[in-house]
Amino acid sequence: MSNPEDYAQSNFQAALFALALERGGGAPLHLQLADALRGLLIGGRFAGRKLPASRVLAAELSVSRMTVTTAYDQLAAEGYLATRRGDGTYVADHLPHLVPAPKRPRPAPAPPVPPAPFHPGLPDQALFPHRAWARHLERAWTRPAPALLARADPLGWAPLRQAIAAHLAAWRGLDCDAGQIVVTSGAWDAFDLLRGAALQAGARIAVEDPGWPTQQKLLQRGGLSPCPVRIDGEGLDPARLPGGLAAAIVTPSRHYPTGTAMPLARRLALLGWAEAEGALVIEDDYDSEFRYQGQPLPSLAGLDGLGRTVYMGSFSKLLSPGLRIGYLVLPEALTGAARDHLEVTGARASLLPQPALAAFMESGEFATHLRRMRRVYARRQAHLLACLAPFEGLLSLSADPSGMHLMLPLGPDLAGRVPDREISARAAAEGMVLRALSAHARLPDAPEGLILGYAGFEEPRLGEAAEALGRILRAAAG
Amino acid sequence: MSNPEDYAQSNFQAALFALALERGGGAPLHLQLADALRGLLIGGRFAGRKLPASRVLAAELSVSRMTVTTAYDQLAAEGYLATRRGDGTYVADHLPHLVPAPKRPRPAPAPPVPPAPFHPGLPDQALFPHRAWARHLERAWTRPAPALLARADPLGWAPLRQAIAAHLAAWRGLDCDAGQIVVTSGAWDAFDLLRGAALQAGARIAVEDPGWPTQQKLLQRGGLSPCPVRIDGEGLDPARLPGGLAAAIVTPSRHYPTGTAMPLARRLALLGWAEAEGALVIEDDYDSEFRYQGQPLPSLAGLDGLGRTVYMGSFSKLLSPGLRIGYLVLPEALTGAARDHLEVTGARASLLPQPALAAFMESGEFATHLRRMRRVYARRQAHLLACLAPFEGLLSLSADPSGMHLMLPLGPDLAGRVPDREISARAAAEGMVLRALSAHARLPDAPEGLILGYAGFEEPRLGEAAEALGRILRAAAG
Repeated sequence: MSNPEDYAQSNFQAALFALALERGGGAPLHLQLADALRGLLIGGRFAGRKLPASRVLAAELSVSRMTVTTAYDQLAAEGYLATRRGDGTYVADHLPHLVPAPKRPRPAPAPPVPPAPFHPGLPDQALFPHRAWARHLERAWTRPAPALLARADPLGWAPLRQAIAAHLAAWRGLDCDAGQIVVTSGAWDAFDLLRGAALQAGARIAVEDPGWPTQQKLLQRGGLSPCPVRIDGEGLDPARLPGGLAAAIVTPSRHYPTGTAMPLARRLALLGWAEAEGALVIEDDYDSEFRYQGQPLPSLAGLDGLGRTVYMGSFSKLLSPGLRIGYLVLPEALTGAARDHLEVTGARASLLPQPALAAFMESGEFATHLRRMRRVYARRQAHLLACLAPFEGLLSLSADPSGMHLMLPLGPDLAGRVPDREISARAAAEGMVLRALSAHARLPDAPEGLILGYAGFEEPRLGEAAEALGRILRAAAG
Repeated sequence: MSNPEDYAQSNFQAALFALALERGGGAPLHLQLADALRGLLIGGRFAGRKLPASRVLAAELSVSRMTVTTAYDQLAAEGYLATRRGDGTYVADHLPHLVPAPKRPRPAPAPPVPPAPFHPGLPDQALFPHRAWARHLERAWTRPAPALLARADPLGWAPLRQAIAAHLAAWRGLDCDAGQIVVTSGAWDAFDLLRGAALQAGARIAVEDPGWPTQQKLLQRGGLSPCPVRIDGEGLDPARLPGGLAAAIVTPSRHYPTGTAMPLARRLALLGWAEAEGALVIEDDYDSEFRYQGQPLPSLAGLDGLGRTVYMGSFSKLLSPGLRIGYLVLPEALTGAARDHLEVTGARASLLPQPALAAFMESGEFATHLRRMRRVYARRQAHLLACLAPFEGLLSLSADPSGMHLMLPLGPDLAGRVPDREISARAAAEGMVLRALSAHARLPDAPEGLILGYAGFEEPRLGEAAEALGRILRAAAG
């Protein structure tokens, strides 16, 4: 044993013969052996060493020879071992000197917190007919229709697209063919599809200011250039649009977040602008099914006959944001390019909810749910306004015929004296999500006001929150 | 009536008084009236005309005055009517001259066709435990956990990410924390996330050639620059990589489509390259759970300890492509940027399948299903090879220890005489999907061979298809 080579070889053998395998209840012996061998070899100490013959190691470890050959084969396939013809098995010369870094412990994820008043845009999911919905899911997938298992249409499940077309005709005055509808996984997906099918990289897109702040970030991350344009009391004015725009994104049924509806003359002017500029109008119709007086206004896309208008709809506000199901209605001229894009990229929307959602819509349960939520939300808005009545001078109260939130300007006792963002910050300190209108604008001299989401909150909670808000407003007024 | 103005006004009144409303069973009268009025006004013939007072029209139509005022209010809100203070209601001056284009009839969508042999990459969905899966869906959503209804973590449902981490440790030798896992809606989403979190627009990414053709299109559409690099018998060779790459995408466990596994030395060299270049390695591990001899090779990401390697996994091949659920495992250094990106864009993966999939994995049903499919697919591969044995000279037969398809080079009777694409074209004429290896390459002098997916086809179908293929090969050999 004075020869260092012999010494190292014998050291290697000793390490091998000392390997402990767990019998009965543990992993199969060949897997345990392969794991143990890998653990020995990964440090690189034994590179180039010869392994004992499989029957020798098998005898030492009291396992079958098959166990050893299987483990050797596995490690040979992984490159840890090399077989030299007629000369047995060796540890490979080039071995990992990489040892995985020790794991740092991670904090456990925070438990879910209920939404804070007056968080806007949240449907009341406790009132969702979960049981009926779960039944539709189970029915659709227990014995799935053959078409559900075939290569999926990347535009979405055909019966769902038909149900959406029927819904749009009845609720939004939009007459379209199911072939013009693409099921998406939400706004990011919708913009991605439009970029792939209709817009050049870097294209300039007019967005409303104030507007939905996330929209600008989405466009920027998607390689498009948002161009904010200050709205007036009738929404986006096409006369104010700069040249060279590829599209304008608008919320004509109910401007976000002010709630203004775009009058007919303005709608026609916008369509005229699109025609003259060869631009698209993208109508984001996010919650206008929730109209409490009269019918929802017909969609801009319907007025246009889907010539230059793309209609963006979503089920987030109607059912649940976790669904990740929205849709686009495209002009006929864009459907081919959209299909080309989706054939490459694949659909992003899961097929899983689609047959259940189609059945939920076809059965009428969806419309029933919408009508029910309309009554509930109308009551909640009225209750919130009643609870805020004592603070009339501090907040300018007026009802909104639709939506899931109120945008209320500051009253004469506060307007011009305290910025809306300060009220918002004071409310945040009390655990509220009370967004300032001016925080929805990028351009200077933004209008001010407070955004009070009420849809997701029961009346007693709204009452408490209104009182707390009253205290904050009084304190701010000094 | 000689005054043309009076005549037009009286014409308008006549048209109004002639409006027919359907009583009993139809839509509410005020909606019918609003629709009918809109129909009259939309042509623009009556722009600027004064409407009769509501009590006059109500008496003429035998409806309540409230019905008329509600309809007038609705049309005023839509901009069709304008009220002049103290002077009644007028048709607006600016009115839509746009009438939606008549609808062209559309062809009905084609019924689903069963996949043609030898379409690769298709799991056999008939063997999927649909009933158990549907039960998990129903259970998860009948009384959803509060966290499912709260604001969702854009990285995915935490229990699913934990189940994926456990699966990767057991099946892929990859030790990671659930916090490093992002649930995606598939490859497009995964590349989009990497572009948002780790790669600059236009970044050059090495891809294997031959490789997965869609991958290059995905990268290009996503604003990245794929750079194809010819592989050798050990996969991608880092010594052949040009400078200035931001990443390399590889399939080390099982190269697509040749099936080659990257040996350990090459894996280490690739990780060394990434370290030296400050580049990422993206490991696309698409079907290596299906290994029929020995264990699946541990993942490259596991060898690397997730230092510079991103691991891309998918449930498409394991469960069903319609799920649209895949995942990324990220180095710790990238998790913050990924979260930032997803906080803006929102998750694309539907939350809907996630709790059911987590339960399906936790219960062990997923592993049972994998093991079952492994046995089924191994049998199918063996059967296909047996059926092809009579054509040995035409096709170079050899078994593959893993995967869902075989890549078989042409045999001595055909190789160099007939291009693989010609065989592919002849097979297409007989209704098969028999892809040519050379069609998976962009670089010249591509290797040739045929790709025979077998996983999705029962043995009798494989037998018939093998016979048909034999006839095609014989005919090609002349």
